[in-house]
Amino acid sequence: MSVQRVTAAVLIVGDEILSGRTQDINLSAIAKFLGVLGVEVAEARVVSDVLEDIVAAVNALRGRWDYVITTGGIGPTHDDITADGVAAAFGVKLYEHPEIIAMMEKRYAAGDLNAARRRMARVPDGGELIANPVQGPPGFMIGNVFVLAGVPSIMRGMLNDVGWRLKGGAVVLSRTVRVEKFGEGVIAAPLEATARAYPEMSMGSYPFFGPDGFGSNLVLRGRDEAELERAVGDLIAALEGAGITGATLVDA
Amino acid sequence: MSVQRVTAAVLIVGDEILSGRTQDINLSAIAKFLGVLGVEVAEARVVSDVLEDIVAAVNALRGRWDYVITTGGIGPTHDDITADGVAAAFGVKLYEHPEIIAMMEKRYAAGDLNAARRRMARVPDGGELIANPVQGPPGFMIGNVFVLAGVPSIMRGMLNDVGWRLKGGAVVLSRTVRVEKFGEGVIAAPLEATARAYPEMSMGSYPFFGPDGFGSNLVLRGRDEAELERAVGDLIAALEGAGITGATLVDA
Repeated sequence: MSVQRVTAAVLIVGDEILSGRTQDINLSAIAKFLGVLGVEVAEARVVSDVLEDIVAAVNALRGRWDYVITTGGIGPTHDDITADGVAAAFGVKLYEHPEIIAMMEKRYAAGDLNAARRRMARVPDGGELIANPVQGPPGFMIGNVFVLAGVPSIMRGMLNDVGWRLKGGAVVLSRTVRVEKFGEGVIAAPLEATARAYPEMSMGSYPFFGPDGFGSNLVLRGRDEAELERAVGDLIAALEGAGITGATLVDA
Repeated sequence: MSVQRVTAAVLIVGDEILSGRTQDINLSAIAKFLGVLGVEVAEARVVSDVLEDIVAAVNALRGRWDYVITTGGIGPTHDDITADGVAAAFGVKLYEHPEIIAMMEKRYAAGDLNAARRRMARVPDGGELIANPVQGPPGFMIGNVFVLAGVPSIMRGMLNDVGWRLKGGAVVLSRTVRVEKFGEGVIAAPLEATARAYPEMSMGSYPFFGPDGFGSNLVLRGRDEAELERAVGDLIAALEGAGITGATLVDA
């Protein structure tokens, strides 16, 4: 079977996320959307509305990972400079895309298509449009970088025109084994022993404190379903061997 | 007045954030906590539970920003490797901190202080403990890097022992001017004109779609309160000059 790993980075642009004023919810939405397509989000960065920071992040991420998805900074106001940053990262110029201008000419009366709105028609040389089914002008892609809006509902709409453009690898599947009434301090040894036996998989422990005290969700992730099922069985057996009873598979 | 800028980066460690399984809420909590102390979060990264990725991110961020706050990856299980990564970034070894071992010896019966739990007592050479008032062992700091738990309630508790250690700069103050029934396309020009007149401040537009149609929150941020108040007045006047009525200061 294929165990090809295809990766993506998410680049979130905006002072409002870094100031804590706005809670980002795009990273998890993108990660879930890409995950089922066999594209694993391997890194994320949040940078402020500063041109050189955007350029540096785009170049670092597009060189290292298969795809980069950016969100935010493509509106009409002066602080929206993601298109400028992406164009600079690729060393190309922005131009007014005729299709976007045509869309805007339909939408706005002649006098209302002002300089601010025309900013949103700018696409880097060599870029392709990413449809926006929700509201406003399209995003774009250039090379392995996809430039999407920051407003979550619009961003999610645009993802639909991103998915088919990605060449996914083997989907990462996951299983969660839930342990109640036992803490990580005793879970660690059987979990690690099982993880060592499956070096191709990743296993993590996410503790919680519930009404019955400590517990943990043990998440097993891998690209081979049969191996994943074997690992779940081995983990539950290893937990029982360590006196940890009641471990259950909570999603399949 | 002082306009000294003091910065921090947030480094979130954990596959569970990148997979979308867990929604991060630590970034915004840290940003707000540091903001009132005069420390501005200028960048954030999320990396997976991979040693070399943690090392690279710690070194990139601690070299560029005044402080680095990490969250996640300091539990007892094998996938918790943040301490290893931070020690490697500083080129020092981890050792079992006697104070943490003493705390654990009080808490656990002799046979229960196992290898997994002892992992949580490891601190890099030269590190100082960060108290954990909530539950579990302390975090630590080394150089300008603070290493905190990932569980939000525990992370927030630890921040209380971080704050007094930071030398803050001038606090960034913000004001929000809310515009209803007008979209960013017409707001952009008066906003940009005002922003140009106040180069020391940052002004951003965060649009919304409400029951009365489009609107936007215009956020002005700066370190000089008197200048900020002048800018708010100038912005409202500029909006009115462009025919945009009803702009109101929604927080002061």
